[in-house]
Amino acid sequence: MREVAILGIGQTAVDEHWDKSLKELAGEASIAAISEANLKRVDAIFVGNMLSGMLSKQENIGVLLSDWLGIPGPETIKVEAACGSGAAAFRNGLISVASGEVDTALVVGVEKMTESLPIETTEALSTAADADYEAVFGLSFVSINALVMQRYLHVYGWSHTDFARFSINAHANALHNPNARLHLAITESEYNQARMIAAPINLLDASPIGDGAAAIILVPAEKLSPCTPFIAVAGSGAATDTISVHSRKDPLWLSAAAKSVKIAYQQARVTPTDIDLFELHDAFSIMSALSLEACGFAERGQAPRLAIEGEICPSGRIPITTRGGLKARGHPVGATGVYQLVEVVQQLRGEAGDTQIVDAKIGMAQNIGGSGASIITHILQKKN
Amino acid sequence: MREVAILGIGQTAVDEHWDKSLKELAGEASIAAISEANLKRVDAIFVGNMLSGMLSKQENIGVLLSDWLGIPGPETIKVEAACGSGAAAFRNGLISVASGEVDTALVVGVEKMTESLPIETTEALSTAADADYEAVFGLSFVSINALVMQRYLHVYGWSHTDFARFSINAHANALHNPNARLHLAITESEYNQARMIAAPINLLDASPIGDGAAAIILVPAEKLSPCTPFIAVAGSGAATDTISVHSRKDPLWLSAAAKSVKIAYQQARVTPTDIDLFELHDAFSIMSALSLEACGFAERGQAPRLAIEGEICPSGRIPITTRGGLKARGHPVGATGVYQLVEVVQQLRGEAGDTQIVDAKIGMAQNIGGSGASIITHILQKKN
Repeated sequence: MREVAILGIGQTAVDEHWDKSLKELAGEASIAAISEANLKRVDAIFVGNMLSGMLSKQENIGVLLSDWLGIPGPETIKVEAACGSGAAAFRNGLISVASGEVDTALVVGVEKMTESLPIETTEALSTAADADYEAVFGLSFVSINALVMQRYLHVYGWSHTDFARFSINAHANALHNPNARLHLAITESEYNQARMIAAPINLLDASPIGDGAAAIILVPAEKLSPCTPFIAVAGSGAATDTISVHSRKDPLWLSAAAKSVKIAYQQARVTPTDIDLFELHDAFSIMSALSLEACGFAERGQAPRLAIEGEICPSGRIPITTRGGLKARGHPVGATGVYQLVEVVQQLRGEAGDTQIVDAKIGMAQNIGGSGASIITHILQKKN
Repeated sequence: MREVAILGIGQTAVDEHWDKSLKELAGEASIAAISEANLKRVDAIFVGNMLSGMLSKQENIGVLLSDWLGIPGPETIKVEAACGSGAAAFRNGLISVASGEVDTALVVGVEKMTESLPIETTEALSTAADADYEAVFGLSFVSINALVMQRYLHVYGWSHTDFARFSINAHANALHNPNARLHLAITESEYNQARMIAAPINLLDASPIGDGAAAIILVPAEKLSPCTPFIAVAGSGAATDTISVHSRKDPLWLSAAAKSVKIAYQQARVTPTDIDLFELHDAFSIMSALSLEACGFAERGQAPRLAIEGEICPSGRIPITTRGGLKARGHPVGATGVYQLVEVVQQLRGEAGDTQIVDAKIGMAQNIGGSGASIITHILQKKN
């Protein structure tokens, strides 16, 4: 397989974009990435998206986008893996370029969620769970995660307030990201007193939905001029678990995260200590803890300690959500995985502004579809 | 890239499956394919599906399926390219195996369409068209195809009855396919008198929707015992056109079909005269004509002559829809592309019963998403 380089990135702000349709959001991010890569066209377009059919009455969005971009005739598909759609699309674009099947791939994650009624959006999101054994009983994604967090507090003896630093760090970092949904620093006292959503998850444990798109151009590294610095995709792994948490022997262990990160570590020939930053899937604060543990950054049940001790902050041992994460950059579900990768690229290029990780060389991104059901992990590395 | 072999196939009947859910349909076809391939598990699952979110309130169906099958942890995604989703999923599975990224891939096309109200299904199908410039004006897929057919009749001087043989052939072939939706021979007089849907398309020009699933196991050919006969994927091409027919300079030319088939012919090192059978995308009879022309089997405007002269029948020069096609086997949209490939495999193995093409060695399948917007062509070849 050929080594693959990221030649361009683009993103819109995550926001309520009342004036932009699905194709305009995807188009704006794509044009930015294509321009940065200095390309006129691409061979293939991989779109990560979950909700376009249900919320925008629009499928076939790969063709819609290539048509709108004025790129004639590229191969294009939409990839769906619930909230993991973005990284799943990236991984399929990666394999296409690495294998030699195509020479230039545009990967776009896009989601438009705020134009629908909240009940419609919640119902559409619940299609990531088992319709027959979860959604039908009224289990939403917040309530599934609330059950997991409650169990974690019970088993390991932490209190809710011990999770405060995950949200405080994300909000603090988002202040310096112009594309973040929430520019709002929060305190521990505000975290503790936030409105309850589904106990023990309150408003400041949960990520906000939003509209947005992020895009990446992939090319084979062999086509670049020799000695040009570039960002390489050093590792890529994907794995799944049962669709329902209640089917797992151990509901507090993200086996798909552990399996996918093991593949990515092996491919990239690195260990957790080599990772300079980690854009993880903090849809809820409990997921930050479970991801850190599954990826080898903390012992089981001990991830809140990393947060309390400041090790997840930009200056810490394993900085996470450096541009705001899902919690404060926002979570336009099918786009999120591509936002994470774009943000890792910004860090490795040294373009992350006030939350720049000093001398960042290797970054990781992990995107989760469903309640830990489908997990895709990528490791990016600065070369030359 | 490694040569890829088809090691197992499976399918359910296309029908109104009131007693089977989406996962049970996909599971039944998958178990058949996995058993035939004599495997215990697979590395990856690629699901082709268009409508599960809108009609069954279920996304993340790759995980749903692996979970239901009891296969622990494989990589899995859903691929959507409107009615071309099945072949698009197959193509992504193919690239994953050919590149060496995975060693065994299960490709499943599945769709459940008959449990919803007809208006819901029609609305869901219309998401393959441009929501802002087609669907919003009430253009359904039948009416888009009716405009194309009317134009074809006008430009080339054929009459509606000249298309009868496309439907008669499909229905005649489906009589011998136990998995076909319609077991019902039709006559030219019945074709001429069928109820009008959107002039000039009548009921016997249009394919029926249905529930169903088809599955294929892909492995690298190098892993098979030497000298074992097998079915190889000899060519694969994908291309797109504008999403709307009205944006095309020539609405009677399927440029994405021509482009994708050219790639497939080149990879397989064949020309149209080498193709022993062609499972084309006859969602409407006009599409049979346009596909035959774009793929080099007839001059422009002359495909109806092939039908009138019997050249599309099992004993003719280019047999099409040999197991009933979309017209009579049925069109469970996201599953259709996989059904087509399963049927080509049956022909190449000599398992096609009364519509067996004598000495078939090379077969082609072409799957179309939208109104000619996204087209994927595969060529399969008998080896050893």
